[in-house]
Amino acid sequence: MQNFVFQCATKIIFGRNTENQIGNEVKNYSRKVLLHYGAGSIKRSGLYDKVIKSLQEADIEIFELGGVLANPRLSMVREGISQCHENGIDFILAVGGGSVIDSAKAIAVGVPYDGDVWDFFIRKSTPVRALPLGVILTIPATGSEASKSAVITNEDGWYKRSIGYDLLRPAFAIMNPEFSVTLPPYQTAVGAVDIMSHVMERYFTNVTNVELTDRLCEATLKTVLRNTPLVMQDPEDYNARAEIMWAGTIAHNDLLSTGRIGDFGSHKIEHELSGIYDVAHGVGLAVIFPAWMKYIYKNNVDRFVQFAVRVFDLEIDFEASENTALEGINKLEEFFKSLDLPTHLSELHITDERFEEMASKCTEKGPVGFFTKLYKEDVLNILELAR
Amino acid sequence: MQNFVFQCATKIIFGRNTENQIGNEVKNYSRKVLLHYGAGSIKRSGLYDKVIKSLQEADIEIFELGGVLANPRLSMVREGISQCHENGIDFILAVGGGSVIDSAKAIAVGVPYDGDVWDFFIRKSTPVRALPLGVILTIPATGSEASKSAVITNEDGWYKRSIGYDLLRPAFAIMNPEFSVTLPPYQTAVGAVDIMSHVMERYFTNVTNVELTDRLCEATLKTVLRNTPLVMQDPEDYNARAEIMWAGTIAHNDLLSTGRIGDFGSHKIEHELSGIYDVAHGVGLAVIFPAWMKYIYKNNVDRFVQFAVRVFDLEIDFEASENTALEGINKLEEFFKSLDLPTHLSELHITDERFEEMASKCTEKGPVGFFTKLYKEDVLNILELAR
Repeated sequence: MQNFVFQCATKIIFGRNTENQIGNEVKNYSRKVLLHYGAGSIKRSGLYDKVIKSLQEADIEIFELGGVLANPRLSMVREGISQCHENGIDFILAVGGGSVIDSAKAIAVGVPYDGDVWDFFIRKSTPVRALPLGVILTIPATGSEASKSAVITNEDGWYKRSIGYDLLRPAFAIMNPEFSVTLPPYQTAVGAVDIMSHVMERYFTNVTNVELTDRLCEATLKTVLRNTPLVMQDPEDYNARAEIMWAGTIAHNDLLSTGRIGDFGSHKIEHELSGIYDVAHGVGLAVIFPAWMKYIYKNNVDRFVQFAVRVFDLEIDFEASENTALEGINKLEEFFKSLDLPTHLSELHITDERFEEMASKCTEKGPVGFFTKLYKEDVLNILELAR
Repeated sequence: MQNFVFQCATKIIFGRNTENQIGNEVKNYSRKVLLHYGAGSIKRSGLYDKVIKSLQEADIEIFELGGVLANPRLSMVREGISQCHENGIDFILAVGGGSVIDSAKAIAVGVPYDGDVWDFFIRKSTPVRALPLGVILTIPATGSEASKSAVITNEDGWYKRSIGYDLLRPAFAIMNPEFSVTLPPYQTAVGAVDIMSHVMERYFTNVTNVELTDRLCEATLKTVLRNTPLVMQDPEDYNARAEIMWAGTIAHNDLLSTGRIGDFGSHKIEHELSGIYDVAHGVGLAVIFPAWMKYIYKNNVDRFVQFAVRVFDLEIDFEASENTALEGINKLEEFFKSLDLPTHLSELHITDERFEEMASKCTEKGPVGFFTKLYKEDVLNILELAR
């Protein structure tokens, strides 16, 4: 086990009707908030009205910035920063899924900074302060509600880049699984893939003696594997929705990173994919992760056997345990397919035309991944396997 | 799943040599600390000298209060509070195990309070403030390093009572498993029982649809079950010590309570036992927990079958699943015995002489436990089973 520092101070307020507490929570921090949201589904669901009512009852002045897109854009982040500067706003409230939260995080860290916020994403500067940030989560997927990371796409070159600092963790996250029951099957499915990928990026490590976190990872994966089909079948299954929503937070708040080093090579490759083709992050992961596994499993067959046995309850083939490893990878791919997701680029009508460009951009700062270091050639091979 | 609020903001600094960071951590809070510790093992291990050096290098003025006993006493808590008042101390640093940390928590919450600190323990008053508190943990067991609870014994009547408030959570906890390698087998064993009990108190619930936390509980229990024999065999096994130490924190920081209601009846009964006979908490639990299980398992056989199957990898007896439930309880008791711990009161030379008194005190505020509500008669029956 490796030395580690872990602190996730985000206050989780979980369950039915918790959104009505938003005014009371916000007023612990500010009387002037930027309400940040997406395309408007929160208006259709009635959540928007509830939030406005609760904030008004708490005498909080509301400024709005809606319209965040999936794969949130740098231009809107800059717009939010300007709005905060112009109006003296000192609290950001993100209502939505991971894109909205990530955009809010970038605004929160950009407001107290003199330079351009993209500096942080290209490692030109390190943030030392951020505005406090609150979240009302509607889509379980990215874990951004309690994570330290944010991913933003710069339209100038379609660079999708991430930052990770403890000061980006939201002060609180209100999580009512009822708001996820209206998610269409497709979004439910890509959310599940995203959650599982966050766990698997941590699970596949070369650090030894990480038993507790291994088992916590397996617990989280099994929970998502069992509950996702339940909500695909019955979208209004509150309890299954709740399991998935809470699993999404645990998957990415870094508890599962304690004492170990994750890989995140697949995430890096996927960012190039969704940066260029604007596919949903979870779809990209459903394509890239199995390909990555097939490419690298031989570097640590035993870990893949453990994955197959403990996560998918497979029996070990004691004569050729490599078969068990492969069967585990297969099971994962089958699971993604059972959610009606593509697991190959061809299903997304993506050809090898820009493989070279993606592999170059992905590795321009050096190899990616820790479980296996991936150079440009490796990324090309993985994209080829994903074709 | 039930609605819940969860926030554990304690910063965990885990691993080798982390104690040398103490000065830097403390100075984020104060320049004047009360250094609180136990009987002096920290002096023998060299930890005391390291702490003093690091604090001095950070220009921190040190006041000392050593000599905390197992089952920490109210009189010393009052002494600590006076010392803080007299010297304007505004930070408590606990160096030791659960007793030291609990004593420090009681001091931290007593200093800013006008009345007597015992008021909180008899629910006469509710704390609204506490001094910040830092921890250097040497004994994995109580989970107090990140928990919201503290247990103190009032020598006037030998009442052992607990409080639980988020404001009691330490600001940070430095955890170096190396300091646990010198623990004698007995203390290692009672620590493991304490950790497992914290998980099991949460595991046995009547709240349904708590799959993720069930699985996280099972993950934590399995880790302790596998690693405790390793350290009993080789006390210097750093990695196994590290697994146990981190498991001890996870077991009691309330992550495993999210969405569910724990039982804690066994803990309440044990507090009467150790309050009167001053046995180690873990020893008392090794005696009470199996007796409690045998007394109540019929109220929810399936949950005990799940425990047997998922924690002890037992096969279900499909013709009589109750047998599987009993086999699981048996396995737990055997495990405690394998650690050379007593599992019956007779082994502690405790007779039924004061059963009546313990059962009365335990239930004087009403029945205890949630999985099964226990009245005085039930407590007497459990003590009888434990005889």
